[in-house]
Amino acid sequence: MAVKGNIIIGQSGGPTAVINSSLAGAIKAARDAGVKKIYGMHYGIEGFLHEDILDLKQIVKNDEDISLLRRTPSAFLGSCRYKLPAIDGNEDVYEKIFSILEKYDIQYFLYNGGNDSMDTVKMLSDYAAAHGKTQKFMGIPKTIDNDLPVTDHCPGFGSAAKYIATSLKEIIADAECYGPYRKSVLIAEIMGRHAGWLTAAAALTDKVDLIYLPEVSFDPDDFVKRVKELSEKQSSIVVAVSEGIKLADGRFVCELENADTKKDAFGHTQLSGVGKYLAALVSEKAGVKARSVEFSTLQRCASHVVSETDSNEAFNVGYLAAKSAIEGSSGEMITIDVVSRAPYVANYSKFDIHEVANVERKVPMDWIINDGTYVSDEFIAYARPLITGELNAFYSDGVPVHLSL
Amino acid sequence: MAVKGNIIIGQSGGPTAVINSSLAGAIKAARDAGVKKIYGMHYGIEGFLHEDILDLKQIVKNDEDISLLRRTPSAFLGSCRYKLPAIDGNEDVYEKIFSILEKYDIQYFLYNGGNDSMDTVKMLSDYAAAHGKTQKFMGIPKTIDNDLPVTDHCPGFGSAAKYIATSLKEIIADAECYGPYRKSVLIAEIMGRHAGWLTAAAALTDKVDLIYLPEVSFDPDDFVKRVKELSEKQSSIVVAVSEGIKLADGRFVCELENADTKKDAFGHTQLSGVGKYLAALVSEKAGVKARSVEFSTLQRCASHVVSETDSNEAFNVGYLAAKSAIEGSSGEMITIDVVSRAPYVANYSKFDIHEVANVERKVPMDWIINDGTYVSDEFIAYARPLITGELNAFYSDGVPVHLSL
Repeated sequence: MAVKGNIIIGQSGGPTAVINSSLAGAIKAARDAGVKKIYGMHYGIEGFLHEDILDLKQIVKNDEDISLLRRTPSAFLGSCRYKLPAIDGNEDVYEKIFSILEKYDIQYFLYNGGNDSMDTVKMLSDYAAAHGKTQKFMGIPKTIDNDLPVTDHCPGFGSAAKYIATSLKEIIADAECYGPYRKSVLIAEIMGRHAGWLTAAAALTDKVDLIYLPEVSFDPDDFVKRVKELSEKQSSIVVAVSEGIKLADGRFVCELENADTKKDAFGHTQLSGVGKYLAALVSEKAGVKARSVEFSTLQRCASHVVSETDSNEAFNVGYLAAKSAIEGSSGEMITIDVVSRAPYVANYSKFDIHEVANVERKVPMDWIINDGTYVSDEFIAYARPLITGELNAFYSDGVPVHLSL
Repeated sequence: MAVKGNIIIGQSGGPTAVINSSLAGAIKAARDAGVKKIYGMHYGIEGFLHEDILDLKQIVKNDEDISLLRRTPSAFLGSCRYKLPAIDGNEDVYEKIFSILEKYDIQYFLYNGGNDSMDTVKMLSDYAAAHGKTQKFMGIPKTIDNDLPVTDHCPGFGSAAKYIATSLKEIIADAECYGPYRKSVLIAEIMGRHAGWLTAAAALTDKVDLIYLPEVSFDPDDFVKRVKELSEKQSSIVVAVSEGIKLADGRFVCELENADTKKDAFGHTQLSGVGKYLAALVSEKAGVKARSVEFSTLQRCASHVVSETDSNEAFNVGYLAAKSAIEGSSGEMITIDVVSRAPYVANYSKFDIHEVANVERKVPMDWIINDGTYVSDEFIAYARPLITGELNAFYSDGVPVHLSL
């Protein structure tokens, strides 16, 4: 198929440890297809609206750069949390976007992100279809939350899960080091607003006693009772908890004593503090010293502990999005289809963006066991292959080397 | 020199990522010397007093186990925070210890820890000298805080510093990802009660704007002023702060709004929360959104990011402590003497434990620059070699493999 113009790639939403592998894949595909200009949106669609556009052939020059890019954390191009307005009444915004595309002769538009970012792809491809525009728009899945529908899983999840399992294993060993002489409760707070996939990853390491996902409502009294019972049998207790757990009445647990709660640009409540709150609760009501650990942004940017499987899949979805756009696809997201989990075999396909945008996929209720306090072996079988293999970082002078703009 | 009896090794205080390399070194030396029984204290001197003693030849059987032990986080034998009482009036405690040593025919006693643990070595060797006991007592230095005197640096510091530099580099990239569209202040809270060595390690990565050590008093108004000024010039601001910073009047900053502050068994105040406190202060007074990250116990147990230099030195001090004890030394700690920093060359010697126990070494005042808000190139030259090289973890099923008891 003949290449009809230039390509642009944007990164959007919270970064993952492998979002730049998708960028690397897209760049590689565009090169392989002989696309003349490969552009990057500097800070996603928000920067694009300011015509802040990077010439990626000048920045990612060769295979060595590609290799380094795959080991670079955060969004290499810069990201944004910008939601396109409804088309009706905001045609000027869309016309501006298309005029910039035309100015740079951009025929292929790739956007790498989660639910909100897929909405951007949907809106633009809808607008193009309704207004006789020829540009192609493809979505590349990405989110540590693993909550995009249709695809078996999302690139970014595997590496975040590997980070959680690795770090948790280490801090559990640390917490256990005083043995019977100092009982301890370790509460690990893990990201995931409405979907508990990443919190469930705590089960990929041994010795986690209780796992609380946002899919089921949280009962503080039952929690304290369980910790008390465990503390009579063992000296170290480990709890993994999602930042987004809620009481039966719908209130976020972290809001109970956290006055800081704010909302972000998408109207999401910003969550933090549930770990500290539960640690204080346990110390007071169960009489056992508790410590909370918040993995914070480390869980989404630790490029020094990347899953090789995840990195390769991220590269492939990026590659295929570019290839598909060049071949004429639009309004679709690349998906990963797992043919077999053991041995692990994955294929790729595409899916209508309308089925994907703004839909959140949660952990199946029948994978959540022990009265909502643990996850089943089905989850382990699902997630284990995704964290397997290591993409080693390149170090210089003792710290990892990254590609920079 | 003829071996006169058995050897015992104990681990004490907070773990480091390489404390088990010292254990591995001591085991290797005892094996090389042909010591019949190699014992481990299960939970340090506290477990020893309960005669909780491990037979290490049964547990660490071969070179493969030694290799795995060096990649195992936390204190493999279990640790304690137990301070021996004054000898006067507590002779029964000391007699109990020596009776257990005699029962197991232990002639060589090695203790691996920081200031408080070296006090244990001092007390026991003093007691032995005063009461005609023949056992030898040697200290093995260990602390992420790097605050033991005499030795150039302490095993454990290099790996913790490498973890800080690596993780900080990643979370800074993450914090910068929205660029000019979302100004951000990142406040990283780092361990170190009274000595700022580990917080200073933030300077080993680029892009840290302000570094606050506990060696100098902290002025909140000046801090807010500096953040405000920086926010006019740049969109991302990074601050590294020690958990132990104090106001000019001596109060810990974290105590200003932190009701949780408790004391540990040594009477130290347990610090946490200064990062959250400063983030709230900046958000309110400088009008810039701030996020705090607490590295918590990860900074002392991340065995998946270990400095090879540090791991080798930890092994060597363990080896030499055992060798020195067997050769007749007692009441000393092994020290590291750096002959040249570039190229890096280190030798080892021994030093009187009385000069070491309970003494804290701080960052030299002339290495703290910019009115107490950064560290000099002397610190970089000092610390850089200590974080160099990587001891790669062994992974299986996507998570690191550790040796377990």
